[in-house]
Amino acid sequence: MIVGGGFGGLCAALALRHAPARVLLLDRTNHHLFQPLLYQVATSQLSPADIAKPIRSILRDQANVTVAMSEVREICPATREVVTTGRRLKYDHLIVAGGARHSYFGHDDWEANAPGLKSLPDALEIRRRVLTAFEQAEKYDDEARRRSAMTFVVVGAGPTGVEMAGAISELAYTSLKSDFRRINPRQARVLLVEAGPRVLPAFTEDLSASAKRQLEEKLRVEVLVNTRVTGLGENFVELNGERLAAHTVIWAAGNAASPLGRQLGETDRAGRVLVNQDLTIPGHPEVQAVGDMVFIKDRAGRPVPGVAPAAMQMGRHAARNVLRQLAGKPPTDFWYVDKGSLATIGRHAGIADLKGLRFSGTPAWLAWALIHLFFLVGFRNRTLVFLQWAWAYVTYARGARLINEPPDTPPRP
Amino acid sequence: MIVGGGFGGLCAALALRHAPARVLLLDRTNHHLFQPLLYQVATSQLSPADIAKPIRSILRDQANVTVAMSEVREICPATREVVTTGRRLKYDHLIVAGGARHSYFGHDDWEANAPGLKSLPDALEIRRRVLTAFEQAEKYDDEARRRSAMTFVVVGAGPTGVEMAGAISELAYTSLKSDFRRINPRQARVLLVEAGPRVLPAFTEDLSASAKRQLEEKLRVEVLVNTRVTGLGENFVELNGERLAAHTVIWAAGNAASPLGRQLGETDRAGRVLVNQDLTIPGHPEVQAVGDMVFIKDRAGRPVPGVAPAAMQMGRHAARNVLRQLAGKPPTDFWYVDKGSLATIGRHAGIADLKGLRFSGTPAWLAWALIHLFFLVGFRNRTLVFLQWAWAYVTYARGARLINEPPDTPPRP
Repeated sequence: MIVGGGFGGLCAALALRHAPARVLLLDRTNHHLFQPLLYQVATSQLSPADIAKPIRSILRDQANVTVAMSEVREICPATREVVTTGRRLKYDHLIVAGGARHSYFGHDDWEANAPGLKSLPDALEIRRRVLTAFEQAEKYDDEARRRSAMTFVVVGAGPTGVEMAGAISELAYTSLKSDFRRINPRQARVLLVEAGPRVLPAFTEDLSASAKRQLEEKLRVEVLVNTRVTGLGENFVELNGERLAAHTVIWAAGNAASPLGRQLGETDRAGRVLVNQDLTIPGHPEVQAVGDMVFIKDRAGRPVPGVAPAAMQMGRHAARNVLRQLAGKPPTDFWYVDKGSLATIGRHAGIADLKGLRFSGTPAWLAWALIHLFFLVGFRNRTLVFLQWAWAYVTYARGARLINEPPDTPPRP
Repeated sequence: MIVGGGFGGLCAALALRHAPARVLLLDRTNHHLFQPLLYQVATSQLSPADIAKPIRSILRDQANVTVAMSEVREICPATREVVTTGRRLKYDHLIVAGGARHSYFGHDDWEANAPGLKSLPDALEIRRRVLTAFEQAEKYDDEARRRSAMTFVVVGAGPTGVEMAGAISELAYTSLKSDFRRINPRQARVLLVEAGPRVLPAFTEDLSASAKRQLEEKLRVEVLVNTRVTGLGENFVELNGERLAAHTVIWAAGNAASPLGRQLGETDRAGRVLVNQDLTIPGHPEVQAVGDMVFIKDRAGRPVPGVAPAAMQMGRHAARNVLRQLAGKPPTDFWYVDKGSLATIGRHAGIADLKGLRFSGTPAWLAWALIHLFFLVGFRNRTLVFLQWAWAYVTYARGARLINEPPDTPPRP
């Protein structure tokens, strides 16, 4: 049984292609999501269907896999059972790939005013807020309210925060620039707020400095490092104790592992399961956990980062461990292979660190675009996304600029 | 001032391109919707962004138009004011293009169990229900529940009902056919229920008979004419007094004009405003109403149908009337020019009546596809939709097969 159809779970299922076993994959949604491009749905460059694909259609030709759209409520390693809404399911081997959500570090009440970005509904909600803010600004007569509507604060300068800040700024400076009559979208302020001393802290200091420069110079994002969010409410955020009026705040500051982790054993502060080096959980060689919900170290003793390539490697390794156990052999240890890191910031802006080869600007942006296009699952999507990117690149257009509003959402006064 | 950014309102705004006037267009959403293809979003052939485009980006180069995303609450012809959420706006000339919603003929409580198809959220909700029904069927062990999950009832055999029934059947027979392990999607039952004696009653009797034959033979839809819905609840529908278990019921049976109509003057049973022949409302030559919310007759004395071409013609005519009045001349009468009717049923199935030239099957389907592609607003969309259709045609794939679920929707037990 596999819980979760993200990168880890899906790669595990695919790696069990020739396994002499029946595989049941559970996910609460019906689709696998290419999460690295989710911010482009949030900023209306892409549509949901461009970056998501039904799990059962990805696995349609793999006859030993059954897919069920079910939310897992509970895992009982003692009885070898998984409990979903209304059903108890028995397993022989279990791979848990529950992923992570965003974390508000104890301020869960902040979520309503500062949504995070992990799922398609998250992305559509952020898109709705960003586009609606410009619509509101166009209607306001009061200058202060208009300024507040056109102020966008992104909290957290990891890859997601940097991408979001860059993309919102591009939206205002290019795609929307001629759409309004009473406001000038280029007067939008985009702030990127980071509690630590630098942006993209997973990269080296020089690349991090380059990213900050590109954000400020190419994308006109105001970068505030060493700045903490001390309060947050409707239409404002408090930074190091000082209040700033802003209709739109986006949270990209922290991760909390899937709560399923706590049912598997000991966890770290972020809720990640402390798995054995072979990905099994202590005392249960038939249960493995993979991906963002896991804490594990690489050969150099550093924690494996919560990125798609790591989840994919773990998923495949867990599948191999199952095959070994079916053949009566013990599982083997997992060692993460780091193929390098890339971060995009915006059009012609990015940084790259590929095994010590470090570069930034247009080459990094191009490398990022090519690699992401290459890994996007499914031929049809890849072609269409490429066409959409090419078209957007030439025209600066944002085609998917739709506010997906549930029918009964009350309009903001 | 123009209320509504559908076909009528948008064409009115475009026709005022060179008017010596400031134009304010209000719509409660931010997009113009190509409604004739909405059923393809509901059956996951297309994505929302393929058939919708931000109104302000359509009108971005027309400097005399301001677009505001606002819901109109009230129209006061006496004081020449329009009331939106939080604002009162004065007008000199007003064109109301409020459109229509679906009507349940006094059974408004049926809506929860039988959603209709007028907006993007409607389409995504229907898509969610149809796809979730198959997901549920795959999980059920009980044969009766499984049959209920795989029974789809479309109420109303006008163009929307026929298209929906055909598209759901195609989805089950082609796109989903290899996706499941425990059910065979081809065992899905699709019923098209019509209270009157024939399908597509706006067409001639022979074309209508041909449509019924194509539905039954090419698309395996069970067509029930002279059949009334006498009851409706969770997971069942009552047809002529007999109860049928069905998880999914879709309502395509009736229209109710925008409630704004009642504030403009006398209305017919469907809530449509009885406008003068020149589209003005009685007693107010500065107020015109256009599109689906209007009752008006053509030269032959027949009511003008609630279709996109009629709304577009009325919108343009209303704009010309405003221009005449600005020049001190009286408005002129509106006469609908019927260029023919087309209905699609499914792959290689359709009927056409173009000025007496009647044909059906593949030629009608091709004519329908070409004309709809041609009229789809905006080049980018048109190209992408064409590619998507071509791809789907060759592969029978449905790429947008995503269940767009709001994060807190409780899963159905």
